[in-house]
Amino acid sequence: MIRISVDAMGGDFGPEVVIPGTAKALERHPEATFIIYGLKGECEPLLAKYPKLRDRSIFHECEVAVSMDEKPSAALRRGRYVSSMWRSIEAVKLGEADVCVSAGNTGALMAMAKFCLRTMANIERPAIAGIWPTLKGESIVLDIGATIGADSQQLLDFALMGGAMARALFEIDRPTVGLLNVGVEEVKGQEEVKEAGRLLREANLPTIAYHGFVEGNDIGKGTVDVVVTEGFTGNIALKTAEGTAKQIATLLRESMSRTLLAKIGYLLAKPAFDRLREKMDPNKVNGGVFLGLNGIVIKSHGGTTADGFAAAIDVAYDMARNDLNAKIAQDLTLYHAKHQPPAGPEAA
Amino acid sequence: MIRISVDAMGGDFGPEVVIPGTAKALERHPEATFIIYGLKGECEPLLAKYPKLRDRSIFHECEVAVSMDEKPSAALRRGRYVSSMWRSIEAVKLGEADVCVSAGNTGALMAMAKFCLRTMANIERPAIAGIWPTLKGESIVLDIGATIGADSQQLLDFALMGGAMARALFEIDRPTVGLLNVGVEEVKGQEEVKEAGRLLREANLPTIAYHGFVEGNDIGKGTVDVVVTEGFTGNIALKTAEGTAKQIATLLRESMSRTLLAKIGYLLAKPAFDRLREKMDPNKVNGGVFLGLNGIVIKSHGGTTADGFAAAIDVAYDMARNDLNAKIAQDLTLYHAKHQPPAGPEAA
Repeated sequence: MIRISVDAMGGDFGPEVVIPGTAKALERHPEATFIIYGLKGECEPLLAKYPKLRDRSIFHECEVAVSMDEKPSAALRRGRYVSSMWRSIEAVKLGEADVCVSAGNTGALMAMAKFCLRTMANIERPAIAGIWPTLKGESIVLDIGATIGADSQQLLDFALMGGAMARALFEIDRPTVGLLNVGVEEVKGQEEVKEAGRLLREANLPTIAYHGFVEGNDIGKGTVDVVVTEGFTGNIALKTAEGTAKQIATLLRESMSRTLLAKIGYLLAKPAFDRLREKMDPNKVNGGVFLGLNGIVIKSHGGTTADGFAAAIDVAYDMARNDLNAKIAQDLTLYHAKHQPPAGPEAA
Repeated sequence: MIRISVDAMGGDFGPEVVIPGTAKALERHPEATFIIYGLKGECEPLLAKYPKLRDRSIFHECEVAVSMDEKPSAALRRGRYVSSMWRSIEAVKLGEADVCVSAGNTGALMAMAKFCLRTMANIERPAIAGIWPTLKGESIVLDIGATIGADSQQLLDFALMGGAMARALFEIDRPTVGLLNVGVEEVKGQEEVKEAGRLLREANLPTIAYHGFVEGNDIGKGTVDVVVTEGFTGNIALKTAEGTAKQIATLLRESMSRTLLAKIGYLLAKPAFDRLREKMDPNKVNGGVFLGLNGIVIKSHGGTTADGFAAAIDVAYDMARNDLNAKIAQDLTLYHAKHQPPAGPEAA
């Protein structure tokens, strides 16, 4: 049985999207149970509409809802111990839930998750991993914005964690991992990226197949299962791709409504368009996974729909069922048993 | 009269694409003249097919063609003074041409351009500016890969140079400029980006309107005329956008050929698709502009078609006609007259 804690107050629409989304996810995973945290006045009337969910969940009333534009420091001050966001994370820490899902603001969620769960042994920095639709299916891209900058050791940690996530999510034995760079030749790129490449090549790990460098256009091609980069570049790549997809959708819509023939053509080909939309739908692959903490937290898009939130719960379910954190811990132990800790005065 | 020097040996297809492309550009700019550099055996038979171009150009035989996969250092050793690439750049230095166009390999072209033309006064590093199709038209994005990393002063230089290019290319008085970042709030992002934002806000320049931070999805929206970032992130953003556009095109083609109705729909709506393709066509906005050197060099895509190469010449023509480098020099002088040189032991 998988137990999922849910922050009902997260996202642009709060419980109005989160509770119907959770109810949808329950239909797909009838053996799951939920612990739902939120403001009573807003959540209880909604829960009453979904009796199946109400039967399979426990509702905990909270006093505070973290707002979408609250700064992480302010959210921590105001919402620690008492907010629906904090308490849904804490349920994982206390062992009451296997995984936590929130559509709340990313900065606050990461700050609370770090504060509450702490980073895993051998991990300096957590990362946010995104699931990216590709021509071959899906790839994992990390870090998409947990922190800015990463040294070679942190990039290597990201590679290990992303590899473990790919094993859990895609159920493949030895996922391919690439480092995002400006060229595929060994001579080009940031020093940290080149050094991380050297470390990964030398490590020759049994759990991941290091592919080498990949470029921006390799992400959409699905060249590798896991694309590793630091959070600044990863976030900009993700948002640029989202922006490009929206731009093309807008131009296509404009073009298709310009003439009568185009309109008829559009109607005839509508199932094809719908199929494309579904393939590129961010709702379908909704869910950034926080990696490197002592507990799994899934961040759903703030502007998500109920379907999108249900998809984030699907990811949470898979991660918990496949014991993601145990896989990560195992891979890290394996690596660090073979390799010296990173050099430097602050090395553990 | 605009005089354009052309490296006939650049690109995946060399003179077979470059010479027809140049001939096409001449049709649009009948007052332009060309100086063409290349291997005699390959170029002369092609020039014979385009008598109008032959009449409006001078052909210089060269001994060496830089190959597309040659490393910059090797290209410099082998091709300095004698290659078609070097000599087309040198024509700008010698004042024989107003602008140079090459589809040759980017690294070698930048290395030769830096070596031959040198950076402008007050500029530490050149940048490559790309022209990006947006929902509002076109924007300039720089640096898309000249160098990796940039400090706040270099980002400010990029903003000034990109602004001058926008004035030359779009013929607007005070283009808007944004710094690419992971969030639009002032508190987020890389230190250098935040510092550059502070400098730009304080400078309050008459030539550019500083907009603030922009995110990856703002590029395609056309939120600002000029997007400034360092070369690692810029290159990855560009290639990620290209990859996403290709991915969608592939998925759309697959969807449209899946059923008979979709095929008929596609045929009816074909003009609409063609219109979209044209809007997103990299050939139409083909041309990275090297900024910050004592002379203008335009890099065309290596895999370009004759139409694409002609489009790169269009960009070159506009840049020369609007006296891009004079605008840049003027803006830099204006800024540096008002502001102290950057601090540090190596400051000029």
